[in-house]
Amino acid sequence: MSKIGVGVLGAAGMVGQRFLQLLQDHPMFEVVQLFGSDRTAGKKYGEVVRWQMDTDLPSGISEMVIEPIDLNNMNNMDCEVLFSALPSEEARKVEPQLAQKGYKVFTNASALRMDPYVPLIIPFVNHDHIRAIEEQRKQYDWKGFVVANPNCSSTPVVISLKRLHEMFGVKKIIVTTLQAVSGAGYPGVPSLDILGNVIPYISGEEEKVETEPLKMLGVWEKPDFRYADISISAHTNRVPVKDGHLVTISVEFDRPVSQQEILDAWENWQPPVMSMNLPSLPPRPLIYKHENDRPQPVKDVMTLSGMGTVVGRLRPCKVLDWKYIALAHNTIIGAAGCSILNAELYYATYC
Amino acid sequence: MSKIGVGVLGAAGMVGQRFLQLLQDHPMFEVVQLFGSDRTAGKKYGEVVRWQMDTDLPSGISEMVIEPIDLNNMNNMDCEVLFSALPSEEARKVEPQLAQKGYKVFTNASALRMDPYVPLIIPFVNHDHIRAIEEQRKQYDWKGFVVANPNCSSTPVVISLKRLHEMFGVKKIIVTTLQAVSGAGYPGVPSLDILGNVIPYISGEEEKVETEPLKMLGVWEKPDFRYADISISAHTNRVPVKDGHLVTISVEFDRPVSQQEILDAWENWQPPVMSMNLPSLPPRPLIYKHENDRPQPVKDVMTLSGMGTVVGRLRPCKVLDWKYIALAHNTIIGAAGCSILNAELYYATYC
Amino acid sequence: MSKIGVGVLGAAGMVGQRFLQLLQDHPMFEVVQLFGSDRTAGKKYGEVVRWQMDTDLPSGISEMVIEPIDLNNMNNMDCEVLFSALPSEEARKVEPQLAQKGYKVFTNASALRMDPYVPLIIPFVNHDHIRAIEEQRKQYDWKGFVVANPNCSSTPVVISLKRLHEMFGVKKIIVTTLQAVSGAGYPGVPSLDILGNVIPYISGEEEKVETEPLKMLGVWEKPDFRYADISISAHTNRVPVKDGHLVTISVEFDRPVSQQEILDAWENWQPPVMSMNLPSLPPRPLIYKHENDRPQPVKDVMTLSGMGTVVGRLRPCKVLDWKYIALAHNTIIGAAGCSILNAELYYATYC
Amino acid sequence: MSKIGVGVLGAAGMVGQRFLQLLQDHPMFEVVQLFGSDRTAGKKYGEVVRWQMDTDLPSGISEMVIEPIDLNNMNNMDCEVLFSALPSEEARKVEPQLAQKGYKVFTNASALRMDPYVPLIIPFVNHDHIRAIEEQRKQYDWKGFVVANPNCSSTPVVISLKRLHEMFGVKKIIVTTLQAVSGAGYPGVPSLDILGNVIPYISGEEEKVETEPLKMLGVWEKPDFRYADISISAHTNRVPVKDGHLVTISVEFDRPVSQQEILDAWENWQPPVMSMNLPSLPPRPLIYKHENDRPQPVKDVMTLSGMGTVVGRLRPCKVLDWKYIALAHNTIIGAAGCSILNAELYYATYC
Repeated sequence: MSKIGVGVLGAAGMVGQRFLQLLQDHPMFEVVQLFGSDRTAGKKYGEVVRWQMDTDLPSGISEMVIEPIDLNNMNNMDCEVLFSALPSEEARKVEPQLAQKGYKVFTNASALRMDPYVPLIIPFVNHDHIRAIEEQRKQYDWKGFVVANPNCSSTPVVISLKRLHEMFGVKKIIVTTLQAVSGAGYPGVPSLDILGNVIPYISGEEEKVETEPLKMLGVWEKPDFRYADISISAHTNRVPVKDGHLVTISVEFDRPVSQQEILDAWENWQPPVMSMNLPSLPPRPLIYKHENDRPQPVKDVMTLSGMGTVVGRLRPCKVLDWKYIALAHNTIIGAAGCSILNAELYYATYC
Repeated sequence: MSKIGVGVLGAAGMVGQRFLQLLQDHPMFEVVQLFGSDRTAGKKYGEVVRWQMDTDLPSGISEMVIEPIDLNNMNNMDCEVLFSALPSEEARKVEPQLAQKGYKVFTNASALRMDPYVPLIIPFVNHDHIRAIEEQRKQYDWKGFVVANPNCSSTPVVISLKRLHEMFGVKKIIVTTLQAVSGAGYPGVPSLDILGNVIPYISGEEEKVETEPLKMLGVWEKPDFRYADISISAHTNRVPVKDGHLVTISVEFDRPVSQQEILDAWENWQPPVMSMNLPSLPPRPLIYKHENDRPQPVKDVMTLSGMGTVVGRLRPCKVLDWKYIALAHNTIIGAAGCSILNAELYYATYC
Repeated sequence: MSKIGVGVLGAAGMVGQRFLQLLQDHPMFEVVQLFGSDRTAGKKYGEVVRWQMDTDLPSGISEMVIEPIDLNNMNNMDCEVLFSALPSEEARKVEPQLAQKGYKVFTNASALRMDPYVPLIIPFVNHDHIRAIEEQRKQYDWKGFVVANPNCSSTPVVISLKRLHEMFGVKKIIVTTLQAVSGAGYPGVPSLDILGNVIPYISGEEEKVETEPLKMLGVWEKPDFRYADISISAHTNRVPVKDGHLVTISVEFDRPVSQQEILDAWENWQPPVMSMNLPSLPPRPLIYKHENDRPQPVKDVMTLSGMGTVVGRLRPCKVLDWKYIALAHNTIIGAAGCSILNAELYYATYC
Repeated sequence: MSKIGVGVLGAAGMVGQRFLQLLQDHPMFEVVQLFGSDRTAGKKYGEVVRWQMDTDLPSGISEMVIEPIDLNNMNNMDCEVLFSALPSEEARKVEPQLAQKGYKVFTNASALRMDPYVPLIIPFVNHDHIRAIEEQRKQYDWKGFVVANPNCSSTPVVISLKRLHEMFGVKKIIVTTLQAVSGAGYPGVPSLDILGNVIPYISGEEEKVETEPLKMLGVWEKPDFRYADISISAHTNRVPVKDGHLVTISVEFDRPVSQQEILDAWENWQPPVMSMNLPSLPPRPLIYKHENDRPQPVKDVMTLSGMGTVVGRLRPCKVLDWKYIALAHNTIIGAAGCSILNAELYYATYC
């Protein structure tokens, strides 16, 4: 059975590289086209990329010539799926048109995440939102569609809260993030700014963490998304860590909950998507570590090949009800890995 | 006029070194004795210390012989004041006896901070608690006394909240700390644990941050301390930063407060101690930075020679009322600098 | 076929952990005993170790009880092989006696490396030195034997020079090392010393780099080692890198050599050991990277699973003849991995 | 007496900022004009600069409007001196024309350093080369002139060798550098490239270190520079350090020299410029540290306010004669500080 041809938009960037790494030897998808900016288009990928992954650049990819993102020449291409790692502004311009032309666009860009007809999905959390693409196509008269995955900082927040919200009702959370530099792309954060330092501000990040979870933890009821009624407050910070966003979370529930109930909820969580046969699904969505000083980015970021979220330090909060910490790999489950999982979810759902 | 002779307990450690650096050329105090562990006692300070300060080790100090902490031989010594940078367990054993012998002990150790008769003081916040030493002497029948300064993470929390609590009433706060490695002393945090990493746990630290501010923001009413009625929840983390503890704070007040009221409160704050003539007082207790990405440890930790606290990013909190960040130097105003200020406060009050 | 039982001396340390990680699922060896200091002996490994590896602690190992290094009780043990990660002083005391008792000791300790009858081996470089154990047993009247591997900084020097010395004759080299903190063990280098810093001194290290290669690049002629006649000068430095020692090398040969001759020598190097069937042998001893800014520790240290040495930047030297850089993983091929390879070499040679 | 008006070219960059910091309250010079790229020209300095210095941005400077580097409008300006922190290519275009127009140009750019009529000066090393500007003006028919200072890596090499070369004759040196990220300017080195890593390549750097010292250690004999006859080989590396270039040096002399002779040479070195009254001269050009692990960047880079070079670890070299290490602040004595010293030298010599 032949694989589905995919293209990667913004292929030379940090998240673009992660897409290519994760798609290597993928059982369903095959990368057939790479797209990049005017600076890189027309050149071989291997010549322009500053490869940051810890596995070798696949030689087949290295030889591929990057194509420009020129909408006039993007009709009837070999690829059926487009994974997008575009900057937000460019994504806003081109992703709708690519969907209109019939492509299945799975995007890591923030541009359309909060669009009223674009589903924002982490399959563990809200796999059923994939159905929203039907309404999307109708409303926008698109032949293809756009599915988004959330911001890398929203990811550990939402994954750790999903089951708790289902069981106990989450009312309020206060989050502080300690985010890795790879989240800012390449060249990204200058070393002079971050060596031995903390930068207590990331443009636009707090707004994302305070809104995206509401859409994912809410429900899709044709034709609309109904947001979860949760108050979220976020402090976002950059720290001198390479990969892995760590978040501290204090949470208040609708009703009294014991520590054991929360631990059991996490331990026994079997989201419906786990019964679907998606190649990139990790064996579990989340792991709780009982050591008192874990998770840590360096030691835990690659848990379940970077597709798992690690939770720890559950203890009472003197202001809200409980507090804990969570860690997720910001460019795997927090970006490219989630986008690929969303594409797998689509095909498992519709084909 | 001759200076007051002082001794430093735990002189070779990180905070001990900071005491010696800050006491160099001090107008009131002169270091006449150094005390250390069995490992260092009997040797010249310059031979055993691993000097970490960025100014040179004073040559007079380098030649001084470290004395053992042997209570039998600590009667009628040359020093009238003892600054303590002892580990907590040892402090618990020796500080009360030294106070009993008549010494004025100003301690950075945590052992006695929450003792019902030991005042815990940052002069900007609660200089009037110094009066509690009178009751302390009576209760314990001590000829001397013990005055403590708070934990280095409590410091930016309390200094930034003091004026707000006075004016608006603080009800609840949630704090996440990003703490420097110098807070763990030397050798302290192994580089293998912290290079490119975050450690989301510091033993005993959350308890300190959740209780010490209540004593300092409370009132001393002879013969007791009445704690402030504030709920505090803390997440404490170690980050690969050398000096400077950064905290993110969300706060709820007793009544509605505007952003401008808070900014004005900070701007116009003139704690009573500012009118006393203490040599180590900075010109202001606190500075608000309006840039959206400040304070940062590397850039701001030495504000007002490390005796100032830097506050920034005041903005609405969707869960509590307001949120902001604060930074203080953990071994200057957060440790040795505060202890010295407390000693100055004592002499200005009583002599 | 049953596996050979092995014990690990100093199992809880950095190199001890690496031994256990590399021996997991090893086709020839099975860890049956762990030995540790008085502090750890009698306790379960999982309770005392501060596990630093990036794979999980094997659960079987975690449950094993650490045994004391008590020579009186170390007769007729289950293990036939002992891998030693002991500190040098302790190694000097116990390794000879363990060899005397009949154990096959493969040691990473420096104590006996330069002993006149102990072979110091990297199998790519001098696999034939293994024959020296015959003379060793005779001279010392041991039932077992000791085989050592070199210092982690000597490793990339020797591996990169071996083939060049064979072909062109190496006369002089000047080496500067940039060494990772894991080379100092755990807790090892305090973070306060190395964050954003370089420490231009490592105790005893320059002597090792200046002498160990002479033994390995020399010949073993029964009954003696004849050292290579090479002048080596080393500058050793610690840098804030987790794993991977990088060395800059300038080299002078006995005769004029072209750049292409050197590249060919490396490219075509097939050390005799490559034809032996050793389970831990990497497919190649060494890889040359043509990019002008490689090797780099973060990107290249895991080349060939950490068993490979990466060489780069070969260019003319204006003082000696040629210069280049080399990188090797200090706790894999530079320590535990080499020791295991040496054990495999022994069994392939003698059994 | 009024101060001399100076302009700074490339004022917003890393070295530009250092110029402004060091020129604040300078007794001879007053910054009256700032020049920048098209991106910054026309805007207030405070609005475009990303200030990296550890002292506050002088408020007068913050309000100054940056002027474009437009040669047509650069006649008869208020400033008599121009300090240049331009990128090399731009420097090559504009510095000669500015000299032609009559300005006294003191440049940190590499463009003209090796020009046959431009003196390359560190006043401790070759203050007498300032006389070369007379020939320069004649040859090029310039009303003004250009004086350059060396590359930041050449600086500790040349300063530590100068006196040794005078006394013993230096024949050969091999240098390995461990260079700070501030040497690459801002944004400069991406954090993803350097966190926990070493980059063993800096474009063009080895060529500079291998040639610039020859000009400075040579002699100026009207009308030419005669280069020193020394062979230099350099390995240049970037390490995760903020400020301070550390170099390891092995050196061979014309004649046998004892360790004490070298220590004495450094100790007693009184370069002629020390008797001139230059405001930015440190009390000594160089300090030798006897501790075995010094100098270190974090601890020693600000020695003598960053205008001093720190030398240490002098010991025999088994290949050349002696080896040692040296450290200099790459943006103070290694860049802006040296340029300012050169300007002071000019006025002390000619006015």
